[in-house]
Amino acid sequence: MNLPLGYAYSAVYAGIRQAERDDLALIVTGLDASAAAVFTRNRVQAAPVGLCRRHLALSKGRVGAILMNAGNANCATRTGDAVALDTARATAKILKLPVAQVLTASTGVIGVEMDGAKIMAALPRLVEGLSPARFEDAARAIMTTDLVSKTAFAEAHLRRGSVRVAGMTKGSGMIQPNMATTLGFVMTDAELPAAALRVILKRAVEASYHRLSVDGDTSTNDTLVLLANGASGVRPEAKELARVEEKITGVMEHLAQAIARDGEGAKKFVTIEVSGAPSDDAAARLARAIANSPLVKTAIAGSDPNWGRVLSAAGNAGVVFDPGKTDIWMQGVAVCRGGLAAPFSEAELKQKLDAPECHIRFSLRGKAKGEARFWTCDLTHGYIHINASYRT
Amino acid sequence: MNLPLGYAYSAVYAGIRQAERDDLALIVTGLDASAAAVFTRNRVQAAPVGLCRRHLALSKGRVGAILMNAGNANCATRTGDAVALDTARATAKILKLPVAQVLTASTGVIGVEMDGAKIMAALPRLVEGLSPARFEDAARAIMTTDLVSKTAFAEAHLRRGSVRVAGMTKGSGMIQPNMATTLGFVMTDAELPAAALRVILKRAVEASYHRLSVDGDTSTNDTLVLLANGASGVRPEAKELARVEEKITGVMEHLAQAIARDGEGAKKFVTIEVSGAPSDDAAARLARAIANSPLVKTAIAGSDPNWGRVLSAAGNAGVVFDPGKTDIWMQGVAVCRGGLAAPFSEAELKQKLDAPECHIRFSLRGKAKGEARFWTCDLTHGYIHINASYRT
Repeated sequence: MNLPLGYAYSAVYAGIRQAERDDLALIVTGLDASAAAVFTRNRVQAAPVGLCRRHLALSKGRVGAILMNAGNANCATRTGDAVALDTARATAKILKLPVAQVLTASTGVIGVEMDGAKIMAALPRLVEGLSPARFEDAARAIMTTDLVSKTAFAEAHLRRGSVRVAGMTKGSGMIQPNMATTLGFVMTDAELPAAALRVILKRAVEASYHRLSVDGDTSTNDTLVLLANGASGVRPEAKELARVEEKITGVMEHLAQAIARDGEGAKKFVTIEVSGAPSDDAAARLARAIANSPLVKTAIAGSDPNWGRVLSAAGNAGVVFDPGKTDIWMQGVAVCRGGLAAPFSEAELKQKLDAPECHIRFSLRGKAKGEARFWTCDLTHGYIHINASYRT
Repeated sequence: MNLPLGYAYSAVYAGIRQAERDDLALIVTGLDASAAAVFTRNRVQAAPVGLCRRHLALSKGRVGAILMNAGNANCATRTGDAVALDTARATAKILKLPVAQVLTASTGVIGVEMDGAKIMAALPRLVEGLSPARFEDAARAIMTTDLVSKTAFAEAHLRRGSVRVAGMTKGSGMIQPNMATTLGFVMTDAELPAAALRVILKRAVEASYHRLSVDGDTSTNDTLVLLANGASGVRPEAKELARVEEKITGVMEHLAQAIARDGEGAKKFVTIEVSGAPSDDAAARLARAIANSPLVKTAIAGSDPNWGRVLSAAGNAGVVFDPGKTDIWMQGVAVCRGGLAAPFSEAELKQKLDAPECHIRFSLRGKAKGEARFWTCDLTHGYIHINASYRT
């Protein structure tokens, strides 16, 4: 895969987390980039989230570098704001950037003071290691309970040349629509003004991270940044913008799906499709209710074609619908027709539900066209195991 | 404990569930009772819920008998309405009651046709077995994944004599505020008009079942009925009404707590207290967000004093508050002061959190007085085990 031009990446172990694997990473763009970002809607927000908002406002959406760490969320910390600002300043100084063009992002435990000195000490090594080829290293450094690093790539061939998109993300728990995973960074070398970027990001997030649910929790640190540095020298023509947006959206969909696939303890990736709802928004609410139901998620874990739980979960979505006009399919098998049990072979369907990819389709009869797709995972013993012992 | 006068109970095995234990129960009141009821707010509602609503409207809130079964929810069933009505009719006929004075309630699997013939065949035995002493038998017959039967009792000594209250409930999963558990029946022998009963029930539910969360799911069958048959011959005086309400509320609080204690897979009973919120409603939303967070619930399961998760969960409640003015206690130990880590012995607190009763206090500094108390349980491997295999 061709990476976007003009970006460099690095990662080192700074000692922020106990396990000796890289926990500090850097993304740098040679030409300063247009940037758009979305953040957690949690009332409690980590220090770096505040810093990002302030810097993006000050720089009018221009970004030169993003400093990221795992192992400490820098949230609910006495020294949080100072540590975030000091490390941004130090990064700006080494890279000769205006401070406002440096963003920071953190993920990890809440409520533990972050030792800025460790980051300061590691910064020279971090900058020294910068290379366009170290994209995967950076993606790995921001992992916490993630089992795999999560990256996605795309390329669009436009009239004046090609532009590339690459994204990295982390997250496997605390995932919920209305700002999904903890951290995500999407880079393109297309030339796009910040205003266009904001519109693209808003729509792309709606179609990707907001369609994702692992456990219904939303973190204090969720940050998603989209950068466009123009290093390709290609400014998409007006009619080509949709294709660039499609590529960016595709990368973000892939990243969001990767999070659900890597959901804490997840053995199965579950896609929920809703159609025939009064509106797309209503469809999304129905899909989310099904995706968030622990009873549905445990049924999937147990390969149990328990469509009654799907119907009941949808009934809690706050959407008006006629249960008697509801059809449900699992793995393509009709299990509920008009709100009633459809005949199917329980044994055969159980076997189909043993697959690593499960599919639930929830459809309302009638003329309405609202539809939505949602991704989640099953709820297994692994989730409990990870979360009963993560911190200590 | 003295049971309310004038009620009789019975339970038999009718073959609705596979396991050979009682699955059909009956509550009968000699004098027809005033009744008030609340039902699930799920958009998908079981046939008996519709029947109860219709009969209570027709009878103007008078009830003579309640027929209850476990093993089949009679929801999303082709013949559901007919089965509910036929069995109510047959019960009315044997007991010589107007049909509209018979309620039915079901709990169990959704989407499987209920065999009314089994209930019809068992009805004579059921009626024959009626006895004022068989209260516990009825409570046991409505259990599904419940590990223990759940009952509560109270007595109020009024000027003209004593009145008694007794309640039974079932439920351990699919428990969520805004209609909590599946089935609950509270009987008193006080003489109370239906209008007063409705007011009492509404307030008592708010203080009990609506303060309870096990897994955030709300069932299709939730039904809570309050009966007052006047068999004590005591009509509370106006100024005594509050004491009767207090007893009824106390019984319902006890029942709701019993559900959380018996939460599917639960090892720990968790009380969450919120104070200093802008309003009682805001406090309830904060408490509910904390109670519903799988990350908080798994931390409790792991005896992990992870107060950051509590703060983060509260941040998702949709309530405006200043994290910097937040104090959190776990087991009475201050773990967070002004949104920051408070010094505490991790080892000691971990040990305290091994207790079967856990307590989280979340308090906002300032002049606001909104408060709420919520009950939930920890999230353990047991929940997964039960729900990945319940149906099959």
